[in-house]
Amino acid sequence: MSARVRAAVLTAPETIEIREFPLPDCGEDDGLLRIEATGVCGSDVGAYRGAFGPDLFPMPLILGHEIVGCVERLGRRAAERWGLREGDRIVVEEHLPCGRCALCTSGRQKMCIKRRYGSVAITTAPALWGGYAERVYLHPDSVVYPVPDSIPAELVPLFIPISNGLDWIERVGDLRCGGTVVIHGPGAHGLGCVIGARESGAETIIMTGLSRDRARLDLARVLGATHVIEADREDVRERVRDITGGKLADLVVDVTPGATEPIETAADLCAVGATILVAGFKHGHASPGFKSDPFFFKELTMKGVWGRSSASVPPALRLIASGRYPLEQMCTHRFSIDETREALETAGGTRGEAIHVTVLGAAGST
Amino acid sequence: MSARVRAAVLTAPETIEIREFPLPDCGEDDGLLRIEATGVCGSDVGAYRGAFGPDLFPMPLILGHEIVGCVERLGRRAAERWGLREGDRIVVEEHLPCGRCALCTSGRQKMCIKRRYGSVAITTAPALWGGYAERVYLHPDSVVYPVPDSIPAELVPLFIPISNGLDWIERVGDLRCGGTVVIHGPGAHGLGCVIGARESGAETIIMTGLSRDRARLDLARVLGATHVIEADREDVRERVRDITGGKLADLVVDVTPGATEPIETAADLCAVGATILVAGFKHGHASPGFKSDPFFFKELTMKGVWGRSSASVPPALRLIASGRYPLEQMCTHRFSIDETREALETAGGTRGEAIHVTVLGAAGST
Amino acid sequence: MSARVRAAVLTAPETIEIREFPLPDCGEDDGLLRIEATGVCGSDVGAYRGAFGPDLFPMPLILGHEIVGCVERLGRRAAERWGLREGDRIVVEEHLPCGRCALCTSGRQKMCIKRRYGSVAITTAPALWGGYAERVYLHPDSVVYPVPDSIPAELVPLFIPISNGLDWIERVGDLRCGGTVVIHGPGAHGLGCVIGARESGAETIIMTGLSRDRARLDLARVLGATHVIEADREDVRERVRDITGGKLADLVVDVTPGATEPIETAADLCAVGATILVAGFKHGHASPGFKSDPFFFKELTMKGVWGRSSASVPPALRLIASGRYPLEQMCTHRFSIDETREALETAGGTRGEAIHVTVLGAAGST
Amino acid sequence: MSARVRAAVLTAPETIEIREFPLPDCGEDDGLLRIEATGVCGSDVGAYRGAFGPDLFPMPLILGHEIVGCVERLGRRAAERWGLREGDRIVVEEHLPCGRCALCTSGRQKMCIKRRYGSVAITTAPALWGGYAERVYLHPDSVVYPVPDSIPAELVPLFIPISNGLDWIERVGDLRCGGTVVIHGPGAHGLGCVIGARESGAETIIMTGLSRDRARLDLARVLGATHVIEADREDVRERVRDITGGKLADLVVDVTPGATEPIETAADLCAVGATILVAGFKHGHASPGFKSDPFFFKELTMKGVWGRSSASVPPALRLIASGRYPLEQMCTHRFSIDETREALETAGGTRGEAIHVTVLGAAGST
Repeated sequence: MSARVRAAVLTAPETIEIREFPLPDCGEDDGLLRIEATGVCGSDVGAYRGAFGPDLFPMPLILGHEIVGCVERLGRRAAERWGLREGDRIVVEEHLPCGRCALCTSGRQKMCIKRRYGSVAITTAPALWGGYAERVYLHPDSVVYPVPDSIPAELVPLFIPISNGLDWIERVGDLRCGGTVVIHGPGAHGLGCVIGARESGAETIIMTGLSRDRARLDLARVLGATHVIEADREDVRERVRDITGGKLADLVVDVTPGATEPIETAADLCAVGATILVAGFKHGHASPGFKSDPFFFKELTMKGVWGRSSASVPPALRLIASGRYPLEQMCTHRFSIDETREALETAGGTRGEAIHVTVLGAAGST
Repeated sequence: MSARVRAAVLTAPETIEIREFPLPDCGEDDGLLRIEATGVCGSDVGAYRGAFGPDLFPMPLILGHEIVGCVERLGRRAAERWGLREGDRIVVEEHLPCGRCALCTSGRQKMCIKRRYGSVAITTAPALWGGYAERVYLHPDSVVYPVPDSIPAELVPLFIPISNGLDWIERVGDLRCGGTVVIHGPGAHGLGCVIGARESGAETIIMTGLSRDRARLDLARVLGATHVIEADREDVRERVRDITGGKLADLVVDVTPGATEPIETAADLCAVGATILVAGFKHGHASPGFKSDPFFFKELTMKGVWGRSSASVPPALRLIASGRYPLEQMCTHRFSIDETREALETAGGTRGEAIHVTVLGAAGST
Repeated sequence: MSARVRAAVLTAPETIEIREFPLPDCGEDDGLLRIEATGVCGSDVGAYRGAFGPDLFPMPLILGHEIVGCVERLGRRAAERWGLREGDRIVVEEHLPCGRCALCTSGRQKMCIKRRYGSVAITTAPALWGGYAERVYLHPDSVVYPVPDSIPAELVPLFIPISNGLDWIERVGDLRCGGTVVIHGPGAHGLGCVIGARESGAETIIMTGLSRDRARLDLARVLGATHVIEADREDVRERVRDITGGKLADLVVDVTPGATEPIETAADLCAVGATILVAGFKHGHASPGFKSDPFFFKELTMKGVWGRSSASVPPALRLIASGRYPLEQMCTHRFSIDETREALETAGGTRGEAIHVTVLGAAGST
Repeated sequence: MSARVRAAVLTAPETIEIREFPLPDCGEDDGLLRIEATGVCGSDVGAYRGAFGPDLFPMPLILGHEIVGCVERLGRRAAERWGLREGDRIVVEEHLPCGRCALCTSGRQKMCIKRRYGSVAITTAPALWGGYAERVYLHPDSVVYPVPDSIPAELVPLFIPISNGLDWIERVGDLRCGGTVVIHGPGAHGLGCVIGARESGAETIIMTGLSRDRARLDLARVLGATHVIEADREDVRERVRDITGGKLADLVVDVTPGATEPIETAADLCAVGATILVAGFKHGHASPGFKSDPFFFKELTMKGVWGRSSASVPPALRLIASGRYPLEQMCTHRFSIDETREALETAGGTRGEAIHVTVLGAAGST
């Protein structure tokens, strides 16, 4: 084991420096994870570009929260609490619920923002709070899950978009067997929603994207989308009307970053009583064409979602392990820690080449 | 009983003609109601001004659907089905659910629009489908409820805004004992929501209006609002923050006609996990300042509501009968059938004088 | 077309007579269905044995409500309302919702018991209210669905147990992706629940039965059960504990006819917060070992279900048409109308040979 | 402040010894509460009699969890976390959620049983885990709420039955404005449910008890019950049928300790679609007359409840402070710590004299 930990530190917007940190001291309640791989999430790209502000992403910090690794050190009480031993392979969720704030005590632990992996400044000891590094600190509040060794490291971080997709489509969107869903945005989360829709028994799964997203749209089909629409070449309203024989959708999901059209047109795609699920960040921009009248004419519901119910993580991990979906096709790019900047730039590229990007961790460095 | 039925017919936008119609033939399944009073709903005003188009309000037609009256004729099977006798005093709901369309068979009978009282052209026999008349036809699909004779006629039509208020606040908005609600729009429906909030055990009931709505806001206080805000003189966000000690609202209800600001700012008034209820018609206008980001940062829900669950009508009628609220203060204006135009103009006045306007029916004409 | 209609009439418990009836007159609102096949439901067997009493099954009557056939006559308004033409192949649901009773107006049309196919005496004109006949009357209140010609007649009646299974597992039981369900009773409804669980993304599907149900249990495995338990040879509690690693079940479904043990032991199989679904008729018998304490120690929920949400019928029909499940293995026995008695005896046999039994209709008689 | 803490220790079933304990050391995360008063809950009586076993109540222990007091010592971090200062008056909930077990992470913190006030042996440092003492330890996981000084000490412990009543009736039982509820058991929890029903806008509130519970039934009326039934003198089914005009109840709540009849007959009192709420401990006994058939004939739901949603505690405290209910009539008996045995015997008396019993704490001893 190296005596120091290499990590990619975001020091300013679009500025990554590779630094080394001392190994943290661990006590009875915490531990240390040797990182195998960390996925690049859309929010990492946003944070890299400075989109969120210092409240959510205080620089300098180590980004990355779709983390898989092996437990390297583990305190006695932490081992007992988590049911783990050193050497076990685990994922961690990004939130570190304090357990005591109003959010935690009302069942919204996932929204506790006191601390989150990939969102804590390195000035907060022990600095190692992010996944683009060789090691990450296992805080006592970590929420961890064992992962079978059989899953290739690169596939494991997909548990985030897949558990989100399961949770959003089924629990939040309440899509039923035989239902129709329109999913806007063919990135990793949109594809996770395709899987969630498949697993929920949806009959009609319509994915929209741009023509430059051709590869992503093709993969959506492979994963289970029954129809894809190129939103810049086709009339989405008309296509959805045709595909559904005029019945329109039970659920419309927006996971596009930045685009406000899906918010503005969602109601037009909705059947009476349908739900619109909002998960795509718009950088604080308004959706000027948004109309509220269809909400009462059709009794629509719009719901925002943040993160996932933890209950969806184990099924997502088992689904990845099952090999039922060709998930390796989602893993289009991989980089070393030293290449974290390229990883973020690639994930944020607008040409639709990258689907899910991974930064490989310490596996080769031990 | 007069051999012919006088009625106020909307022949073109803002054009009312008083006409006479023959008494309809009734069979075993239907009946005839002698109208005592019909309330003026905001949608009547919109229809009078031509805001909705011929699909919803095909002219010429008799408007009015907040109807109370006495059963004058009743078929044998209708009597059995409704458990009524001639002479009984009843209200009818506006929808006439066909029982067989996709809406009816999925539990949304209230949204069945094949026929609705106050929305059928006089060219559809027997012409008498609206409340601004001496009689209204009791179609076999009518949904009727007995009303105690003790309630003054003018108060009975309030069962519509009050049952809506109960249903919206409690069932749709799921407001709990101790909760905080902001209600935008101090018209009859907004005041019905104040009552719904009181009955649901809400602790903080904030009503917003304009300074010209002073009388309405005062009545809101009498009915149970704990705070009122003049939205054109005060900063609503700041006031709600102050009143709630920063905790913000569990439920925000918009029942303003036309104003889009409440849609644009609702999310700012919401606590994490709160609900926004949309019931105010915006004439198809967009809400250009609407932002979707708060929906996922705070996991908000926006729901549109159309009409009410029929289950809320009997409690509303009992609540009116109980005398627990000074509802007579809501009944600010009354007109004869010949004055239907004045009734609609008064209800649609923008100076906030009128709260609930009633057109008195045949009571004096028998 | 024969001028008269042959039908199997239940005149007294366990007594079937073949009788002929005149073809009914049809008007503008109704029609006539030439029956291809009618499935035998457990409730038909119960009614045949006199288990339910004359309120639910007034004799003499024609049993049978899992009906598929071709529209032979169709009134003008019926054609318009249902979107059908003569010659179309359809199924009908058993309920004939009046649309006006308290059940219908509160969204429980499926529970309206004024009239139900297979439950109306022949003394009510036009007598043809049941499926074990050459023709069945299409009452104006019928709820009908088109069926593709490609599905073999014998498979179509499975839409009842399959739509029930989808509805019960997903909507009523709220089973989520990755969930664990125990299903007691490997009859047609139990197997429909296995399919419902598969379609809902359940990960662990445990079917219990008796050792004499070997063929049914084997079929449960083919359809998707991950584990089967012979309740008379194995300790169900222990097996469920072992299979789930001590986590127990999220949902326990009882569709056994008569057995009360599943009611008595269900709570022991439940994880904290789990649901128990009650759909098996116990002939009014008590479950003497039922304990309520586990309900609050584990915050359990028990729900009874009657029929299905109509929304689950079209997905069930599409699922049958898809060929994704080897449903022909469920269809173990077929009989002619003249053999209706044998059909009921076979379906009610206790040796577990029959899974789903069909009475073939008029197909060969035209 | 006394240098040692007097406490009533349950050393064996029905055996209470008064002992003294050293003042615990407090650190940055915890604190110490000087107890003003602690209510006697039915579970305290059960534990005193040895009904629950050592898993839930390991002896020797200090019972009592309906605790109000003043913060005497408070660590720096505890003060910050709870927003408290020394001298503040607070209540604590009984659970001490660990925040990390499967129950805590799935939103069921109230069911975390690692530690609970009134349920931890004195062998677990610092011994002071129960309310029948001069001081109670404020563990870092405590869930605390400020209480206005204006409420008499004796009334504050009623926040437990009242918050339970609000939560059970409204959130779990989903009783709506105008609804009908039958509450079995006129103890403190039953009376809390009467208040919950009143606050939820219930129109018909029926309380059942025994004739010896006359005083309790009278108080139920004062608090808002519209009807009371003496179950040993009247036919409950018939009375409920008469009172409701045959419509029966939307919600049936059982909070009787030991009696199984309410479980056996609940379904008979239920309207279609009604809910039965199970909160009365039956000492593991079966309910031999329990029948499951009504559950599917009427689509009933039975739900067990354990504790309350924490969200109902602040409204309960505000309701107590409001003075809207004559709650002092619930407080029938009060005892000193030295009289804890008498307090438990009185609360467990079967003559219905005691409604809510309080053990007064250290108030007079400082």
